[in-house]
Amino acid sequence: MKLNIALLAGDGIGPEVIDQAVKVCDVVATKYNHEINWKPALTGAAAIDAVGEPYPDETHEICKSSDAVLFGAIGHPRFDNDPSAKVRPEQGLLKMRKALGLFANVRPTFTFPSLLEKSPLKRERIEGTDLVFLRELTGGIYFGEKGRREGGETAFDNCVYTREEVQRLAKKGFELAMTRSKKLCCVDKANVLETSRLWRETVQAMEKDYPEVEVSYEFVDAVAMRLVQWPNSYDVLITENLFGDILTDEASVISGSMGLMPSASLGSDIGLFEPIHGSYPQATGLNIANPMATVLSAAMMFENFGLHEEGKAIREVVNKALTEGIVTEDLADGGKAYGTNEVGDWLAANV
Amino acid sequence: MKLNIALLAGDGIGPEVIDQAVKVCDVVATKYNHEINWKPALTGAAAIDAVGEPYPDETHEICKSSDAVLFGAIGHPRFDNDPSAKVRPEQGLLKMRKALGLFANVRPTFTFPSLLEKSPLKRERIEGTDLVFLRELTGGIYFGEKGRREGGETAFDNCVYTREEVQRLAKKGFELAMTRSKKLCCVDKANVLETSRLWRETVQAMEKDYPEVEVSYEFVDAVAMRLVQWPNSYDVLITENLFGDILTDEASVISGSMGLMPSASLGSDIGLFEPIHGSYPQATGLNIANPMATVLSAAMMFENFGLHEEGKAIREVVNKALTEGIVTEDLADGGKAYGTNEVGDWLAANV
Ligand SMILES: CC(C)[C@H](C(=O)O)[C@@H](O)C(=O)O
Ligand SMILES: CC(C)[C@H](C(=O)O)[C@@H](O)C(=O)O
Repeated sequence: MKLNIALLAGDGIGPEVIDQAVKVCDVVATKYNHEINWKPALTGAAAIDAVGEPYPDETHEICKSSDAVLFGAIGHPRFDNDPSAKVRPEQGLLKMRKALGLFANVRPTFTFPSLLEKSPLKRERIEGTDLVFLRELTGGIYFGEKGRREGGETAFDNCVYTREEVQRLAKKGFELAMTRSKKLCCVDKANVLETSRLWRETVQAMEKDYPEVEVSYEFVDAVAMRLVQWPNSYDVLITENLFGDILTDEASVISGSMGLMPSASLGSDIGLFEPIHGSYPQATGLNIANPMATVLSAAMMFENFGLHEEGKAIREVVNKALTEGIVTEDLADGGKAYGTNEVGDWLAANV
Repeated sequence: MKLNIALLAGDGIGPEVIDQAVKVCDVVATKYNHEINWKPALTGAAAIDAVGEPYPDETHEICKSSDAVLFGAIGHPRFDNDPSAKVRPEQGLLKMRKALGLFANVRPTFTFPSLLEKSPLKRERIEGTDLVFLRELTGGIYFGEKGRREGGETAFDNCVYTREEVQRLAKKGFELAMTRSKKLCCVDKANVLETSRLWRETVQAMEKDYPEVEVSYEFVDAVAMRLVQWPNSYDVLITENLFGDILTDEASVISGSMGLMPSASLGSDIGLFEPIHGSYPQATGLNIANPMATVLSAAMMFENFGLHEEGKAIREVVNKALTEGIVTEDLADGGKAYGTNEVGDWLAANV
């Protein structure tokens, strides 16, 4: 296969972890006879500094003409406490999601047996946890009209959903549930929000098309609780953009393997693959960031092209590194801590 | 003191737990020379069944003419999966909050040393946890315009905040922080939402009036994570309505003492006091519900009247019951489980 992959390293530790994923992908490509053409492009604070825009047109052109996007991380603290900043790295992320039509954010949360002790939760609560959130990513309050009135004294954000937006996300949810344990949970706040009632009625109407899937409906506040109490009671969860933002981050810390969690953002066309961790600015350039989540995101990318062998090879080498203790300091636990680069080299050499 | 207390038992286990709080309060009143005039009123599904309305005008009149409201729980599963239900118990709750001007929901999360093992989190993560959320309760997306367009195919919910709404809630937060460890965290999503930017800039502008309070600003998704990782790193947190709904419920399960957590909803005038647990319909009438959260809510009520001795007496008797194992089945842990009534009688006899 010939693959054009846009490479958006972004800010903070983004470039470092992306480098390692590239190394691993290049070896996999050679082994399985693919040709990867990497097309680096600017995004985030890095792009603001260079061209004044977090998601420049040129970057968009590169993404659109690629088969997939491999993404590092964006965000820089200098923008965080300045509510008046005109341009923010995050705007680039949102613009990109919308422009590329990436409406479904796939966020798996699973446990690595060797890392269970890292979890803040007790072992018996998380053992066997293997859930996937499908978060709607291009609608809701993120993209509705927002602004000020009364001379700035009143602020508003509009949350809007159409039935079709719910359907296309829910469809992916039902389909994913069919390939797993056929359990789907629709997370909403239908006791308060009209958009949630639209979500619920739309999903209810789709149930008949997937008679094997057992669907449950839970309120977002209840899920925020149960995720901590019994994460292993969930399988596939679908939800709207803002609830998904909060709950997927909550879910990411329960497994104890946050530094290992990959994600995909899919649309009808191109897919984007990125680690769920942030840009971790304090670690920039220190060669200590864990590259495994980015490497596993590359595995999801191969799998999304239908290249399951390739994805499996990457997952296996990551597992091997974990078992053999070839890990960065976040997982070293008093043992030897390898650098970001060393872990990447080891993975590339052993994949 | 002469106290008129509206008594809104509500649905499910509400009436059972409220009964126990009344017993305890009556003894405390006698001991400390107060006179409590209880004024029962209908709310929730119970009110819908009786008069077709979840918060009838008569109930509102009773609340308004009282010094405080003691509330059980509302909600009934027969309304949950019916997105088209015209009247819902929850509407009563929302109407009541708005009509009584209860803009600040005070939700403490603390640990009981004897219950640490109940927590899904590891002991070292939760030891010493003692935080309070102040959730804004009468604004935001709960109360903005909502509805359908395009023949029902598009749904919308509007989130609106005014600077003044933020100020009055933040003021309570700063004041509370001053009586505690002087740490305040403002939880928002200022990287995406305009309402959050209004929250952040308003709180930032108030910092100078409380020079001793150390204020931090965190995104809601980050807080959803850190609450699970290091709950004991927080002290007072202020946030808007929907974020508060999700995060306070998440926080409630980390201590392992969910069945014990009280809450208060305060306005400029009257206060409402209620356990944070729901109506727990499956347990209705079984005499197994834990009444302690409701009893502790009554303690908050006394304290809110400035009656600190009385509040303390109630807290102490609850602690004593816990230590001596006078508990309902949720806390019995293989030991003897007492009934809701028995626990209430014991507390009333020993307060
Ligand atoms: C950076 C921010 C805009 C973004 C979001 O809220 O979607 C992030 O939290 C995420 O989840 O990818
Ligand atoms: C029942 C529901 C409307 C309510 C809310 O969302 O405010 C409840 O979850 C709460 O937190 O009191």
